[in-house]
Amino acid sequence: MSVRTTAVSRNPLNRGRTVVGRARVRLSEFSESSPSRFAILIFAGLILLFTALFSLPIASADGKATGLADSLFTAVSVICVTGLATVDMATHWSVFGHVLIYVGVQIGALGVLTLASILGLAVSRKLGLRARLIAASDTNPLRMHHGPVAEGQAVRLGEIGSLLATVAISAFVIEVVLAALLFPRMLLDGIDVGTAVWHSFYYSAMAFTNTGFAPNADGLAPFADDYFFLTILMIGVFLGSIGFPVIYALSRSLGAWKARRKAKGRTIANRVRWSVHVKLTLVTSALLIVAGAALYIVLEFDNPKTFGTLGASDTVFQSFFLSVMTRSGGFSTIDIPDLNGSSLLVTDMLMFIGGGSASTAGGIKVTTLAVLFLAAFAEARGVQDMESFGRRIPSDVLRLGVSVVLWGATTVAVSSIIILQISKAPLDHVLFDVISAFATSGLTTGLTASLPDAGVYVMAATMFMGRVGTVTLAAALAASQRQQLYKRPEERPIVG
Amino acid sequence: MSVRTTAVSRNPLNRGRTVVGRARVRLSEFSESSPSRFAILIFAGLILLFTALFSLPIASADGKATGLADSLFTAVSVICVTGLATVDMATHWSVFGHVLIYVGVQIGALGVLTLASILGLAVSRKLGLRARLIAASDTNPLRMHHGPVAEGQAVRLGEIGSLLATVAISAFVIEVVLAALLFPRMLLDGIDVGTAVWHSFYYSAMAFTNTGFAPNADGLAPFADDYFFLTILMIGVFLGSIGFPVIYALSRSLGAWKARRKAKGRTIANRVRWSVHVKLTLVTSALLIVAGAALYIVLEFDNPKTFGTLGASDTVFQSFFLSVMTRSGGFSTIDIPDLNGSSLLVTDMLMFIGGGSASTAGGIKVTTLAVLFLAAFAEARGVQDMESFGRRIPSDVLRLGVSVVLWGATTVAVSSIIILQISKAPLDHVLFDVISAFATSGLTTGLTASLPDAGVYVMAATMFMGRVGTVTLAAALAASQRQQLYKRPEERPIVG
Ligand SMILES: [K+]
Ligand SMILES: [K+]
Repeated sequence: MSVRTTAVSRNPLNRGRTVVGRARVRLSEFSESSPSRFAILIFAGLILLFTALFSLPIASADGKATGLADSLFTAVSVICVTGLATVDMATHWSVFGHVLIYVGVQIGALGVLTLASILGLAVSRKLGLRARLIAASDTNPLRMHHGPVAEGQAVRLGEIGSLLATVAISAFVIEVVLAALLFPRMLLDGIDVGTAVWHSFYYSAMAFTNTGFAPNADGLAPFADDYFFLTILMIGVFLGSIGFPVIYALSRSLGAWKARRKAKGRTIANRVRWSVHVKLTLVTSALLIVAGAALYIVLEFDNPKTFGTLGASDTVFQSFFLSVMTRSGGFSTIDIPDLNGSSLLVTDMLMFIGGGSASTAGGIKVTTLAVLFLAAFAEARGVQDMESFGRRIPSDVLRLGVSVVLWGATTVAVSSIIILQISKAPLDHVLFDVISAFATSGLTTGLTASLPDAGVYVMAATMFMGRVGTVTLAAALAASQRQQLYKRPEERPIVG
Repeated sequence: MSVRTTAVSRNPLNRGRTVVGRARVRLSEFSESSPSRFAILIFAGLILLFTALFSLPIASADGKATGLADSLFTAVSVICVTGLATVDMATHWSVFGHVLIYVGVQIGALGVLTLASILGLAVSRKLGLRARLIAASDTNPLRMHHGPVAEGQAVRLGEIGSLLATVAISAFVIEVVLAALLFPRMLLDGIDVGTAVWHSFYYSAMAFTNTGFAPNADGLAPFADDYFFLTILMIGVFLGSIGFPVIYALSRSLGAWKARRKAKGRTIANRVRWSVHVKLTLVTSALLIVAGAALYIVLEFDNPKTFGTLGASDTVFQSFFLSVMTRSGGFSTIDIPDLNGSSLLVTDMLMFIGGGSASTAGGIKVTTLAVLFLAAFAEARGVQDMESFGRRIPSDVLRLGVSVVLWGATTVAVSSIIILQISKAPLDHVLFDVISAFATSGLTTGLTASLPDAGVYVMAATMFMGRVGTVTLAAALAASQRQQLYKRPEERPIVG
């Protein structure tokens, strides 16, 4: 105890001797000692608060209190930016309810971006914000001092505030730009100014936060042929889904490029080097978008219920739209149950993979998938190290990735078995909605809305585990490094 | 080339100067230089031969030639000991056809046991047969000389013959004992002596080779309440599915135990130490059998089509039987489509995992699953090394395991998407039959028998990739170790 007290008294936050000052110190201590548990508590607290708010009569359009199952599910879906619903989101809620939804997804998205960035930094190096996050080194002798982990351990509350501000400003700028692009289009479509402002900000938020709710009762249907509108949504969803570290790198590159243009080649010093994380995320995302779109084209071009009636270019555009949206956006111009079973399975896989780390997207994350394949490639080439873009990736990253995938597969399996047993619904619909919940995709076959309360609670738990679990798991695991005092004799079991 | 020639002339097989002698040398060279490709060619050759034989008019009961799709599928299913069928196996084939099936599964099972043991030894240490397989060290300077790989590389044809003999004798002894136990039971059931001999050997072979075909038209139905008969089948399937290295260790332990009993405690020297592979396989298999049975009890006890009409002890027995059979046996006392969707998904997962390495079972293998979880446990405990039973498991074993799982997941995903698109059948049936094919389980929802020819070829390819792919993949990867001349700078992407 005396060691801890000494550590606290060195903490610059420990200056105030008021009650608030002491509370801040306590909070700071907790967030330092266990950032993952801190994140879980923040999310759980937000969900409880929003459950209470959504259950108020003032939140619903008909002025009646919403039941626990529906208000809890909506709160989880909003805070986890999942986008699934057990009620008709556009018509069930009052104006106050819609403001709750709007504010909730912003809080949820900023919370995820901030926490995931902080926790992610605990296991990553050379990201843009690293310098800001390097702080006093960890003095716990049981923890190994190989740089990155110790860094993450030492993230202080004040730095969380600073990172939160950076994240919030980025999100604000992106959402305002997206809304400004959507607004004139809505006016041209004959929507009145007030509604157009509200709807353009709403759609912009729902795109960047990767939530996928629509403010209007008929959803995306009026815009299904409006490729400008859909393209803006795609850009918003893509930016939200690649993750804050990548957005940060891209914006720094943009700044450096502008500075170089201004300097007219007099200097080439300020070129920004992209980290392996940034390159892996962008390349894997691009490959998945193209592969997904290609598969949708092949599997759906002759399906009369989906793209069968469209021309070639429309089929290609809608396939790309679907491919971008499945991995977490959750917007859809078609009815999901109309897809062929083959396309549903492709969508299951894309949703499970999800978006970038420290993003508003869910799933196991594209870099996790990439690391698994890099391991297999290294194995096939017979080389000892995983390599990517001229860098060696340490083997403990693979172990983290395997842990995340096992967590995801186990969550989806357990949830699917329970929902199958509760609903006796067909596997294609159950697997789809469970993976959509786990990966916070928000696309649905319609099953979620028809589940009994028991199923609704299971789905809510699945969304929570998918969102908070994957974000905190890797960090919690990475933070628990201990020095081993001895090596046991080596032995190889046969695998495969 | 001169180095290779020198190596060959040192080979004791190179004594004869006849055509046969030179052919043996060539074969020996090929099996040495690329054991995985050698295995693939052997399996492909056997399948072509049996396809030709099954297509002969003499092989079918009605004396007409069997079409290519059905004869190829049957050949693959027999040689890969999968147990799926596109024709009624009991009634479609003549006596000659049934002899082909009987001989085919024996060849397929012995081939898999032998090849997998040899290839498995390439990446494993301290198995019983190691001493026999240690041979001249590999002189290729590009390959790393950390023991086990070099050992496997140097397996010679003569040693393959010796291993094959050991495997064949073990299989013969086990199958004769099983048949001897089944035979009196069949006599008691009123079956005539000739048929009883044939059926007891047939069932014994189908159990130990994990194939799951039945010789009689009504299959297991007459024996569904005969717990003695079913228990013998379970024992046969279990012995076949744990893998030859484990059987070898068990038989050595049995021998040592007998020797100790005879010596009456005068010496305790000849106790057999079990390898981590043996312990991991037995513990994981036991856990999976119990977990599977428990899930079937919970999910099916009130299903009127399956166990709903049974008493408690019958439900427990049938659940254990189903749990043992799913992971590769392929025998079933119930109609698979009668299971709840939840149980079908549980079965999918058990089939995908499969049995032990170097066994007649399929799937990704129990040790592969165990290694993934050991990695996650190590990560959660924050220790650097994967540990199991007091031994450290090197991290390249995890990479091999990840490669095997990716291979399995990709094969199942691609095959499922194609079969879904061809058949437009529901996902639960498609996923079930595809995983059953990949993991050579042989249980079926009935979909396989109703597929058009295109689907039959896809399923045949899935069986081949599941059987030969997983057995050769790990070995092929492990055999390609190359020394790296330099280390690249390290960098960590964020995962999860
Ligand atoms: K979403
Ligand atoms: K089988």
